Amino acid sequence: MLIEERLKELHEKIKRKVPKGITVASVEFEGPELVIYTDDPKSFADQDDLIKILARELRKRIVVRPTILEDPERAVTAIKEVVGDNAGITDIFFEQDTGEVLIEAEKPGVVIGKNGATLRDITKEIGWTPKVVRTPPIESSTVKQVRQYLRAAHQERKELLRRIGRRIHRDVIAKDQWIRVTTLGCCREVGRAAFLLSTPESRILIDCGENPGNSTSTPYLYVPEIHPLTQLDAVVLTHAHLDHCAYIPLLYKYGYTGPVYSTPPTRDLAAMLQLDYLDVMNKEGNTIPYSSNEVKEYIKHSIVINYGCVTDIAPDIKLTFHNAGHILGSAIAHFHIGDGLYNVAFTGDIHYGKSRLFNAATNHFPRLEALLMESTYGGAGDMQPPRAEAEEKLYSIISDVIGRGGKVIIPAFSVGRSQEVMLAIEEGIRLEKLPKMKVYLDGMIKEATAIHTTYPEYLNSDLRNLIFKEGLNPFLSDCFEQVDSPDKREKVITGDPCVVITTSGMLNGGPVMEYLRSLGSDERCALVFVGYQADGTLGRRIQKGWREIPIGNRETLVINLECFTVDGFSGHSDRRQLMNFVSHMQPKPEKIFTIHGEESKTLDLASSIYKKYHIQTMAPMNLETYRLV
Amino acid sequence: MLIEERLKELHEKIKRKVPKGITVASVEFEGPELVIYTDDPKSFADQDDLIKILARELRKRIVVRPTILEDPERAVTAIKEVVGDNAGITDIFFEQDTGEVLIEAEKPGVVIGKNGATLRDITKEIGWTPKVVRTPPIESSTVKQVRQYLRAAHQERKELLRRIGRRIHRDVIAKDQWIRVTTLGCCREVGRAAFLLSTPESRILIDCGENPGNSTSTPYLYVPEIHPLTQLDAVVLTHAHLDHCAYIPLLYKYGYTGPVYSTPPTRDLAAMLQLDYLDVMNKEGNTIPYSSNEVKEYIKHSIVINYGCVTDIAPDIKLTFHNAGHILGSAIAHFHIGDGLYNVAFTGDIHYGKSRLFNAATNHFPRLEALLMESTYGGAGDMQPPRAEAEEKLYSIISDVIGRGGKVIIPAFSVGRSQEVMLAIEEGIRLEKLPKMKVYLDGMIKEATAIHTTYPEYLNSDLRNLIFKEGLNPFLSDCFEQVDSPDKREKVITGDPCVVITTSGMLNGGPVMEYLRSLGSDERCALVFVGYQADGTLGRRIQKGWREIPIGNRETLVINLECFTVDGFSGHSDRRQLMNFVSHMQPKPEKIFTIHGEESKTLDLASSIYKKYHIQTMAPMNLETYRLV
Ligand SMILES: [Zn+2]
Ligand SMILES: [Zn+2]
Ligand SMILES: [Zn+2]
Ligand SMILES: [Zn+2]
Ligand SMILES: [Zn+2]
Repeated sequence: MLIEERLKELHEKIKRKVPKGITVASVEFEGPELVIYTDDPKSFADQDDLIKILARELRKRIVVRPTILEDPERAVTAIKEVVGDNAGITDIFFEQDTGEVLIEAEKPGVVIGKNGATLRDITKEIGWTPKVVRTPPIESSTVKQVRQYLRAAHQERKELLRRIGRRIHRDVIAKDQWIRVTTLGCCREVGRAAFLLSTPESRILIDCGENPGNSTSTPYLYVPEIHPLTQLDAVVLTHAHLDHCAYIPLLYKYGYTGPVYSTPPTRDLAAMLQLDYLDVMNKEGNTIPYSSNEVKEYIKHSIVINYGCVTDIAPDIKLTFHNAGHILGSAIAHFHIGDGLYNVAFTGDIHYGKSRLFNAATNHFPRLEALLMESTYGGAGDMQPPRAEAEEKLYSIISDVIGRGGKVIIPAFSVGRSQEVMLAIEEGIRLEKLPKMKVYLDGMIKEATAIHTTYPEYLNSDLRNLIFKEGLNPFLSDCFEQVDSPDKREKVITGDPCVVITTSGMLNGGPVMEYLRSLGSDERCALVFVGYQADGTLGRRIQKGWREIPIGNRETLVINLECFTVDGFSGHSDRRQLMNFVSHMQPKPEKIFTIHGEESKTLDLASSIYKKYHIQTMAPMNLETYRLV
Repeated sequence: MLIEERLKELHEKIKRKVPKGITVASVEFEGPELVIYTDDPKSFADQDDLIKILARELRKRIVVRPTILEDPERAVTAIKEVVGDNAGITDIFFEQDTGEVLIEAEKPGVVIGKNGATLRDITKEIGWTPKVVRTPPIESSTVKQVRQYLRAAHQERKELLRRIGRRIHRDVIAKDQWIRVTTLGCCREVGRAAFLLSTPESRILIDCGENPGNSTSTPYLYVPEIHPLTQLDAVVLTHAHLDHCAYIPLLYKYGYTGPVYSTPPTRDLAAMLQLDYLDVMNKEGNTIPYSSNEVKEYIKHSIVINYGCVTDIAPDIKLTFHNAGHILGSAIAHFHIGDGLYNVAFTGDIHYGKSRLFNAATNHFPRLEALLMESTYGGAGDMQPPRAEAEEKLYSIISDVIGRGGKVIIPAFSVGRSQEVMLAIEEGIRLEKLPKMKVYLDGMIKEATAIHTTYPEYLNSDLRNLIFKEGLNPFLSDCFEQVDSPDKREKVITGDPCVVITTSGMLNGGPVMEYLRSLGSDERCALVFVGYQADGTLGRRIQKGWREIPIGNRETLVINLECFTVDGFSGHSDRRQLMNFVSHMQPKPEKIFTIHGEESKTLDLASSIYKKYHIQTMAPMNLETYRLV
């Protein structure tokens, strides 16, 4: 059936279902949603369950929008009138392309009202669909920029969502039945994650990241399997780390024009890290693979989905994100293929254990036949100490070094490890387990923290309670200070004993290099690794004991400061957690592919899972293709 | 380096190596060969080892051609003068595109002379490079047509060979190092063989056949892995059976413009079978997938190589064919990749045992790391009786049926099984183990037999001796009679007790259908299967005991005649031979992929080889890709 005919048919069906007197002006696919345009948004909103019933019957995500929107200025007045002063509204954004109005408020519950009653009242008054978010306690310039950009591009985005929507809902035409996974990177290595999931009908790329140990090695994007890029249906991004997202903008440079699905925080964090990545590449004298224009293209084409929301992304594929416990917004991507035929999930990076920020990764799914799981710490001996032990060790190192007049440099990914370490140190100082001192944040860490506070629903409930119920936001502690200029950095370097948390986490560029150049030879100081150091990175070399390391063409880095590795802060599951993740899975998958780990670790994990749980396992190589069905 | 520069450099090198006074007018890549054009072919021919030395030093296959060729008419006179009357020259063909002259003679040895002396004399006299073939005792119209067509297209073919030659000898530019095999058909099934061998530099398609059980299912040619077809470097054809070659002409319809490598008999047999295939498809009322024009394209792009001749087919890949023992010209395709990096062989179909026509398949190679081997009879119980026993059984069935006034219908592939059965029956009659009777050949069997006699060097030495030394050519026995018209067929059907050997071998169309329609209900007659019946074919159904079988829309075939299966004539190795083929391999490969067999048989063979010989084995599925390096 032609898509126009299908829309016509849907239009007729919906008209029949909707009570007399409510007009259904038109229906349109916009991205994964079916949008119903009505002249009577107020009457529509009155029919409590109508949208739910339609969604269930048509098996589509349904959104209702008014054909005519209230003038924004008058709408602002109307919103404030309906909501009242209690809510602490700090900003109201109108999104022309979706007909949505984003209401930022200190007390979002008041804007929502009991069972959403106030929201429905707003809809009736102004036509715009209201969405409520909590006013973040730290303002993120990234979030602001992303929103501004999306608003500016709203007309283009509206067209793009229609095009994508029509593509998603096209007819299934293939006669054959098969499902395949092609490995384009991240097999028997850590880095350049990229996997192609394909059926006779559709092709989905999962992740497209950099190789932290080798800045010029991209995923294998030159092989025919993923070409032409114009025929990719979707890119799905598990989380914002660069080894998963760095080369997504490059796809737009190469001709991709489709959507990128991620959670909302992942979109913002990824955009921030991509821009920072370009900046670092540039400063290190490397040619940048794409420009900020392509990052904008990525933002323009991004479609965000929250955990648990089942979404059509191709005629035969539904995507659902589940919490991965790894970093803010990190997701396990679950694909339901061919209306009951098969289910496969990609873990991205997972932490199967509760941390200060997140709940443990989800391992219960409605159905699951195959799993591609990370194996960073998949080796038999890759045990991490408990978090409490790790924090004690970190406290003791910091106390010693500060005590002897030194500085503690903690290289960390700006997203994830930094916030975990910040929370541990803040508590240490607050509970007087650590001396009073400054904790400097260099690189994108503060901005990343701001994004965390923009999406509190993605943090675990303990931390949310601490912030919102007990009014104690540890990220706002005055022990933290941002390093925002070379002058300031110089002052930190020559100043009092302190802790510096700084990027990049594996010492492949970033401000951490400045600290090492200046303090590397100072024996009173210490370098503390709290995260995984990939093969080929400077971090790994120092961990291995290198003490004079040539960097660039002429420079040699001298390492006299004390080097520590504090295990236990990792955002990755250790070996025991990986095995437990599988052991407690519901349902048990038939097949597990071990990826995202050094060769020996993927092989070891694969054979251990097979032996212990009798699940068929594979440690694929890059550039292979496996049939699932 | 640009190809022009490389040719210039080769030109200079060759000039320096060639004795003073012999001109080297130009050098040119033509297909896999480096052609040296000289004004002094006579002097060149005088330098006994010069070509060998150049070939070794430049690591190229070298051919010397005169810049100016003698006028064909005068050349004929010159050739006859040099050779004399003894040779029994029956024909002389001039091939303008290669500068070769094909001399067909009853005694080719006389044309060659001692150590090739007479040939060299011819070269000196006429410039043309002489090639000698034996005058076939039965004239093949296919061979004649193929040769005529190649001569007619000689100008186009010359340009095409230059283009292919330049492509083969292009610079290697890829930085990455990997070798992959992609399965496009024939995995866990018998039929539609198609495998893609790829490196960062090159892509080779091995076979491209039909599925005998389902005439509309082609190999998976729609997947991105093999597109664009214009970037395929080569197609390599293991042998002429339709499950390996039927869809090669289709590639030209889809835009392929490169060469197809095979042995010379495979080219002729494949063209014959493709044309017959179109004919049968057409008669059965199916739409034909391509026309005879595409068969011509295939012939025009074919490059033939004899067993054992190492040939560059891509900048990083050398191909060598080895005897597969299966049918005339059948080959194991051995690929030497990346100048010592890796070696992989595709068996095609193999018979690891001597038959009346062929020697056992080769299983010794200079080097070999991976093998893709057929598994048609790979199941634990798939034992075939010895050939002698099979022949006794066939004799006894034939004697019984003829004795009771019936006819024996033997469906057989026109190529391979037919000739084996012909030889057995001819000997039976000659040695009076069988009554005197007519053996009718229907379908392409006689033509296929003619092609066998065109290439005696591809038969085993026993048969060659019988024909050429003892002067007894069993194919010429007067017990054989061709059925060349519907009238004749009608006479056979209503005539005396006899044997009919007829196509198709699996009863999926062809003249055998006419015999079944007329004689299927006659209980005195018998149907004798001597070859493998694939799943989904009419042959398999009758073997399974079906006795009333709907064919087409309205017709029902009634089977009252006695049905026999005589195992032991197969051109495939049985289970024991497959295991022996591996056990006696030199060297032992590291990896074996079992293909070309039903699912259970490929799995069984894979696990048995692993258990017995400790070689890593895989039974791949279609549409998978495996890394070899
Ligand atoms: Zn990560
Ligand atoms: Zn990762
Ligand atoms: Zn559980
Ligand atoms: Zn065959
Ligand atoms: Zn075959």
